Amino acid sequence: MQQYEVAVLPGDGIGNEVMPEALRVLEVIGAKYGVRFGFRHFDWSCETYRSTGRMMPADGLDRLRDHDSILLGAVGWPGVPDHISLWGLLLPIRREFDQYVNLRPVRLLPGVTPPVRDKEPGDIDFWVVRENTEGEYSQLGGRQGEGTPNEMVLQTAAFTRRGTDRIMRYAFELARKLGKPHVTSATKSNGIYYSMPYWDERFAAISAEYPDITVDQDHIDILCARFVMTPERFDVVVASNLFGDILSDLGPGVTGTIGVAPSGNINPERDYPSTFEPVHGSAPDIAGRGIANPIGQIWSAAMMLDHLGLPEAGADVVRAIEQVLTDASAPRTPDLGGKATTEDLGKAVAAAV
Amino acid sequence: MQQYEVAVLPGDGIGNEVMPEALRVLEVIGAKYGVRFGFRHFDWSCETYRSTGRMMPADGLDRLRDHDSILLGAVGWPGVPDHISLWGLLLPIRREFDQYVNLRPVRLLPGVTPPVRDKEPGDIDFWVVRENTEGEYSQLGGRQGEGTPNEMVLQTAAFTRRGTDRIMRYAFELARKLGKPHVTSATKSNGIYYSMPYWDERFAAISAEYPDITVDQDHIDILCARFVMTPERFDVVVASNLFGDILSDLGPGVTGTIGVAPSGNINPERDYPSTFEPVHGSAPDIAGRGIANPIGQIWSAAMMLDHLGLPEAGADVVRAIEQVLTDASAPRTPDLGGKATTEDLGKAVAAAV
Ligand SMILES: CC(C)[C@H](C(=O)O)[C@@H](O)C(=O)O
Ligand SMILES: CC(C)[C@H](C(=O)O)[C@@H](O)C(=O)O
Repeated sequence: MQQYEVAVLPGDGIGNEVMPEALRVLEVIGAKYGVRFGFRHFDWSCETYRSTGRMMPADGLDRLRDHDSILLGAVGWPGVPDHISLWGLLLPIRREFDQYVNLRPVRLLPGVTPPVRDKEPGDIDFWVVRENTEGEYSQLGGRQGEGTPNEMVLQTAAFTRRGTDRIMRYAFELARKLGKPHVTSATKSNGIYYSMPYWDERFAAISAEYPDITVDQDHIDILCARFVMTPERFDVVVASNLFGDILSDLGPGVTGTIGVAPSGNINPERDYPSTFEPVHGSAPDIAGRGIANPIGQIWSAAMMLDHLGLPEAGADVVRAIEQVLTDASAPRTPDLGGKATTEDLGKAVAAAV
Repeated sequence: MQQYEVAVLPGDGIGNEVMPEALRVLEVIGAKYGVRFGFRHFDWSCETYRSTGRMMPADGLDRLRDHDSILLGAVGWPGVPDHISLWGLLLPIRREFDQYVNLRPVRLLPGVTPPVRDKEPGDIDFWVVRENTEGEYSQLGGRQGEGTPNEMVLQTAAFTRRGTDRIMRYAFELARKLGKPHVTSATKSNGIYYSMPYWDERFAAISAEYPDITVDQDHIDILCARFVMTPERFDVVVASNLFGDILSDLGPGVTGTIGVAPSGNINPERDYPSTFEPVHGSAPDIAGRGIANPIGQIWSAAMMLDHLGLPEAGADVVRAIEQVLTDASAPRTPDLGGKATTEDLGKAVAAAV
C-alpha cells in the first residue's frame, strides 16, 4: 500500500482546531482509495517563539525536508509581530523548499451567498497563480537616520528572469491542463517603473510559447475592480508575489468564501515538499471555542491530494464539501449561520466522502 | 469679482470629450456664486509625444506653476507605453507640485446599481487618502544581465518620515473635518519586511496625536476583501502610493462608480497648484464617439471647487450630479444604460446647477 508522509503543522489559534478535521477526512479518503498517510506532528508556533525565541528549531527546515508534503494550519498570534512569526516560519518554508507557486481557487460554491449580486455557482471559477518566492516580499532594504526627521526606509523588490518565467509558464500550463485557454497578467507597468515593465516583457515572451492560449493584462488597480465587477471573465490569473497575495484574498472575498478558501504553496518539480494551508488566519477572536469552520483546511488537504498524484481523491473531497454545503440539513458553523462545532462539520464532510 | 486661473489639460481620448462638460458646469456655477474662471488650455498628450518625443515641452511644469489649479482629463494612448506617457506628464506634475495627497471618494450614488448586494446610498461613503509622491512608485532601480538567463530587475520603494507622517496627518485631519472620527491604515507588515513595519510604526506615532480618532489597520490583502464584504465599516482609509492606487479603484468598483469617480491630487499647503482628474482613463474603445460619461470630470471639478475654498459650490455640483442620476427622465450615456451623448448629460448637470 502506497504511504505518504505528511508533516502536520497546526500552528496557532484555530489552526489547532481545524487540522484534526482535515486529518479525519484524509484517513477516510485514504481508506477509500487504498493509500495510507503517515502524519508527523510539529507544534511550531508563536508559543514556540515565546518560549525559545524562535518560531521553529534551528534544524526545523531539515526536519521537514523528507516529507512528501506539509499540511499547515495558521501562523500568527497577537503579541508576536507578524513579520517575526511569518519570516520565522511560513516564509522560510516557502523559500527553502522553492515553493514558487502559490495557487488558489476562486470559486462560487453552492450554498454560499456571495457579496456580489446576480452570480450563480459556475459563473465564478478561476485560479490565481501567484509567484511565491521573490518579488515584493524581500528582505532587501533598510533604514537610515533612525529617529531623526530625515529618517528613510528603502524596500527593494527583486524580479529575476528565472523566477518570472517559471511562474508564467506554470500559469500557461495550468490553463492548458484545465482546458481554460486564457491567462490574465496582473501588472502595474504604468506606475512602477522597472519591475512591472519587465514583468510585461516576460509575459509577452512566454505567451509567445503558448499560441493556443489567449492573453490579456490589466493594471492591478483596475484588475481588482474587475474582480468585483466582472469576475466571470477570468480563468487563470498570474501575478507577482504581492499582487497575487491581494488578488487571492480579494477573489474569495468576492465569492464569500474567504473563511473556507484553500491554498497550495507548490514546488511543481517535486524536488521539495509543497505546503497546503487555508487562506484564513489563526482567528484569535474565536480560537479555543471549537466553532471554527474546518472547510478551508479540508479543501487544502484536497489540493494536497491532487498534488500527490491522487486527483480523483482530491476531486472527491471537493465534491463532499459541496454536498455538505448544499445539504440544508447538514451542520453549519456560526460563520455559515449555524450552531455546529468544528468537529460536527468535519465529521459531516468525512461522512460525505 | 474673484477670478481663478485654471490650467486645462484634456489629454488623450475621451479626456477631450468630457472636459468641455466640466468647463460648462464651472461657468454656470461661477455665475451662480459670483466667481470667474480663467481657463488656459494645454494640448499636451500622447500626440505631443508622437510629434515631439516629449509628453510636454521642456518648460511645461513652469507654464503650469502659476495657476490656481489644474483640471486634467485622461493621459495614455495605445502605442505609447504607459510608463512613458505617465512618467512624462502625470507623475512629474504630482511630484513637482508636491501633490502628496491623492484623495478619492468611495460613495454609493443614487441611481447607480452597484455590483454588491444589499447596499443603499448612504451605506457606503468614505474617502481613500493615498500617498502620492513616494513609496512604491519610484524610479529607483534597474536591470542587470539584460538578455541573459541571469537577468534581474530591482525596484526600490522609498518611505520617508516626512512623506509618511504628512499623509497620515492629512488623513486624521480629514477625519476630524468630516466628523468621521475613524481612520483605517492599509499595511502589509506581515510580508513586506522593512517599509510596512515602518508604516505601522509611524501610524502608531501619528495616531497618538489624535486621541479623539479611533484607528484600525488591515493588511492590504484582507483589506481589499473587506472593501467588498463590509464597505460600510470604512470612513477614512490611509494608504501608501500603490496600496492607495489599488483601493481607490477597487472602492469605486464596489460602488459601481468607476466610470464616474473623481480624484484630487492635492498640495494641501497650496504652495503649488493641485490637479483634479477623473479616475477613468482615455478609453480608446469609445473615444471619438461623443458618448463618454462626463460625470467623473464634472465631479473632479467639484472637488476642485472645494479645494479652491468654495465648498458650497462644490457641494452644489455634487448635488446636481445626484439629482440627474436620480431623475429617471434625465439623459443617460450608454454606460448608464441610455443613449444620450456626453453633451446631453453635461448640459443636464449644468441645468441642475
Ligand atoms: C495611470 C497611473 C499611473 C495612475 C496611478 O497609478 O497613479 C492611475 O492609476 C491613477 O490612480 O491615477
Ligand atoms: C501571512 C502573510 C505573510 C501571507 C502572505 O502575504 O503571503 C498570507 O497573507 C498569505 O497570503 O499566505
